[in-house]
Amino acid sequence: MTDIDSTTDTGTSTDTELGLNDLTTRLDKAHVFHSWSAQGALKPLVIAGGLGCRVWDHEGRTYLDFSSQLVNVNIGHQHPAVIKGIIEQAQLLTTIAPSTANLARGEAAKRIVDRAPDGFNKVFFTNGGADANENAIRMARLHTGRDTVLSTYRSYHGNTGAAIVATGDWRRIPNEFARGHVHFFGPYLYRSEFWARTPERECERALQHLERVIQSEGATSIAAVLLESIPGTAGVLMPPPGYLTGVRALCDKYGILLILDEVMVGFGRTGRWFAFEGSGVVPDLITFAKGVNSGYVPVGGVIISDAIAADFDTTVFPGGLTYSGHPLAMASIVAALDAMEDEGIVENAARIGADVLGPGLTALAEKHPIIGEVRGEGVFWAIELVADRETRAPVAPAVMARIKTELLARNLLPFVQDNRIHVVPPCVVTDDEVAEALAIYDEVLCLDLL
Amino acid sequence: MTDIDSTTDTGTSTDTELGLNDLTTRLDKAHVFHSWSAQGALKPLVIAGGLGCRVWDHEGRTYLDFSSQLVNVNIGHQHPAVIKGIIEQAQLLTTIAPSTANLARGEAAKRIVDRAPDGFNKVFFTNGGADANENAIRMARLHTGRDTVLSTYRSYHGNTGAAIVATGDWRRIPNEFARGHVHFFGPYLYRSEFWARTPERECERALQHLERVIQSEGATSIAAVLLESIPGTAGVLMPPPGYLTGVRALCDKYGILLILDEVMVGFGRTGRWFAFEGSGVVPDLITFAKGVNSGYVPVGGVIISDAIAADFDTTVFPGGLTYSGHPLAMASIVAALDAMEDEGIVENAARIGADVLGPGLTALAEKHPIIGEVRGEGVFWAIELVADRETRAPVAPAVMARIKTELLARNLLPFVQDNRIHVVPPCVVTDDEVAEALAIYDEVLCLDLL
Ligand SMILES: Cc1ncc(COP(=O)(O)O)c(C=O)c1O
Ligand SMILES: Cc1ncc(COP(=O)(O)O)c(C=O)c1O
Repeated sequence: MTDIDSTTDTGTSTDTELGLNDLTTRLDKAHVFHSWSAQGALKPLVIAGGLGCRVWDHEGRTYLDFSSQLVNVNIGHQHPAVIKGIIEQAQLLTTIAPSTANLARGEAAKRIVDRAPDGFNKVFFTNGGADANENAIRMARLHTGRDTVLSTYRSYHGNTGAAIVATGDWRRIPNEFARGHVHFFGPYLYRSEFWARTPERECERALQHLERVIQSEGATSIAAVLLESIPGTAGVLMPPPGYLTGVRALCDKYGILLILDEVMVGFGRTGRWFAFEGSGVVPDLITFAKGVNSGYVPVGGVIISDAIAADFDTTVFPGGLTYSGHPLAMASIVAALDAMEDEGIVENAARIGADVLGPGLTALAEKHPIIGEVRGEGVFWAIELVADRETRAPVAPAVMARIKTELLARNLLPFVQDNRIHVVPPCVVTDDEVAEALAIYDEVLCLDLL
Repeated sequence: MTDIDSTTDTGTSTDTELGLNDLTTRLDKAHVFHSWSAQGALKPLVIAGGLGCRVWDHEGRTYLDFSSQLVNVNIGHQHPAVIKGIIEQAQLLTTIAPSTANLARGEAAKRIVDRAPDGFNKVFFTNGGADANENAIRMARLHTGRDTVLSTYRSYHGNTGAAIVATGDWRRIPNEFARGHVHFFGPYLYRSEFWARTPERECERALQHLERVIQSEGATSIAAVLLESIPGTAGVLMPPPGYLTGVRALCDKYGILLILDEVMVGFGRTGRWFAFEGSGVVPDLITFAKGVNSGYVPVGGVIISDAIAADFDTTVFPGGLTYSGHPLAMASIVAALDAMEDEGIVENAARIGADVLGPGLTALAEKHPIIGEVRGEGVFWAIELVADRETRAPVAPAVMARIKTELLARNLLPFVQDNRIHVVPPCVVTDDEVAEALAIYDEVLCLDLL
């Protein structure tokens, strides 16, 4: 506790930019506790504003955002139509209980199911991706009367009780307090867990492995397979052709539900509304967050297939939250999805991936032996860096730290994870911005890094 | 999936109010999945706008909001200063990753710790109350190296994995998938679990019961006691004098942390910034949401004592979320807390409780034998309805449904839970509005209900 008002005279006013970077840093250091970090040595970048693919601090230093923050700003920063939608709703009604009916909420839900496959008509809104997965898991367990949820190692599903244990990376380990979760290996040809050398073999063996896990756990105990359609944080692990279809077939064979986590990949990231589109696969539940409104207001949710929704026509659904279907979030979804549609933003992501970013990254890979693999689509790519192309040994953490520093020094905001650079700009990125970023990656990869 | 644009021509525009209630109801029915409900028979009230203690639909029908929605709109609906704060931030920067530093975030955190006890200097922001509790539990487990969390029957802590199992009402039962949770009985003199007839005895016996549970579970296995400072949804269960102090003493005796859940009671509801204020008790972790910004943007968080925060100076905190410290939410906190301070809104809640609402409800209780007990403080009250004052048998659910209908018919939006009416208007409620509501409660309780 400090004296009330001792620094509040500076308020949040921006009429003087003098020293606001320093003030921000001081307040942050003193009072803000950050996600997934040791707090002591943090030196967070000050960000005060943004537009499109750029963000800036209080002193006018500008960065090209090739992270989309946490891969959520699909529509770019401060899209005027979304800001307008938020402001109009703020002037009307900011908050209302989930038990009421609100027009913005109905309009948002409709726009979401409009983009989902046939047979998906209802949306349960949450505050983010974690609680979207929590509620999808809840629905799957209640629908099947079974407990176990299978998910992959190398996945991230959120930080709350069940979502964090469903997660398949290191973050699960200190948080292992939920029961009923079992992990299996998904396909990842570059570092195959199945001693495969071709996509066909990787697919076939990954499916055989999953079926053996299902049988070994006992099919009748398994409520759902929870999968990121394309594992994101784990490294943009493009599933080989046929994998999702194969998982769907196994689920059908054993009476298991398929939950696709589209939190990171949904709403444009891959150049499609949903990443699973075009695979021929229809899941039973779809979870979303991030791209649906680019994170302008915290929101997430579950898109529910009719068969599962029908369970809860007469039976009470035992889940809920104060801000389910929050009007401000709803208005931002309506505005964001309309603008993405009107401006062809998803199509832009597809075109950029196919014609500009994909070829550009492939060219980088050809030039720089430190690049082990480039993979992705749309505006969703990973560059995997290796100390040795033969052994595929990841570069050391110090190399990645250096790369991050060098990219930032060149005013590019990168997404760096393990031994990878994720190249994940907003879906509105232009050819010129891609060229600018590629030149910066190139310059940094030319340094003597190893 | 329906045709994109088939109903979107109506958009969210309000230039014609004609039929908007019906449109809202139709979209809601078709596409919105509601919390904690069977969906089939729901007839959600349409709400389109609000101001202060009133909300209205599209056709101009207005309700006096004595629910504060889910007991969150402490500052009243559409407070102009908070709307202004949200709009200004929306024009600057709506979203930014948690890893950055942002001025609104630092300013919000500072305003929160300014109101907390000495020795609380850091805030971890979440999206709501559930994930606030999730992260407090995580911190407590990591700080103590112990697993078990004790919480009371008759409590609500949220809908995600750990929060729902910490919850002590029926909602836990279908969601029992987290381990490490044990429940005990808290004090509730009107329906004592300890055969007590005085507050002193209830307190003494509730503490003895808690100590026996601690000993029986094994003190060294217990990370934290998680308590609502005043259990809210369970019925505004005012702890007897000395109870919180006693719990703190037991926690100290056994090396257990005390987490106070101030999600519903914090930031003005009781006529104090925190409900535990004035009790002499200092917890180790405080969770909050709702009142901190009246829910204008989804947000919650944990206020962390220095000893626990220090753990994570050098050790990675294994928790996080995409929208931690969301700028729009932060700006709404800054504006809401400043306005509450400037306008004496917390003081108003205290005065209303002591001078107007408390006496008014007591008078109702004297008049109506159906009222078994009235309890509360500030703008946080419960009227417990009984079929028989002697046996204290709760009135039947049908009676409560009738009461709800009759209150709504008189344009009062009530909070009805089990056999209780929670009288929980915004903290800005005026004497006249209280008088208006009391007259409506009185009129309805005069009906032949039993
Ligand atoms: C695939 C996936 N699922 C779930 C989440 C969790 O979302 P949130 O951080 O909003 O809880 C994330 C966040 O990165 C994600 O990438
Ligand atoms: C005391 C308490 N804790 C936690 C919560 C959960 O908050 P949320 O619904 O924002 O997750 C609530 C909600 O009513 C509450 O009353």
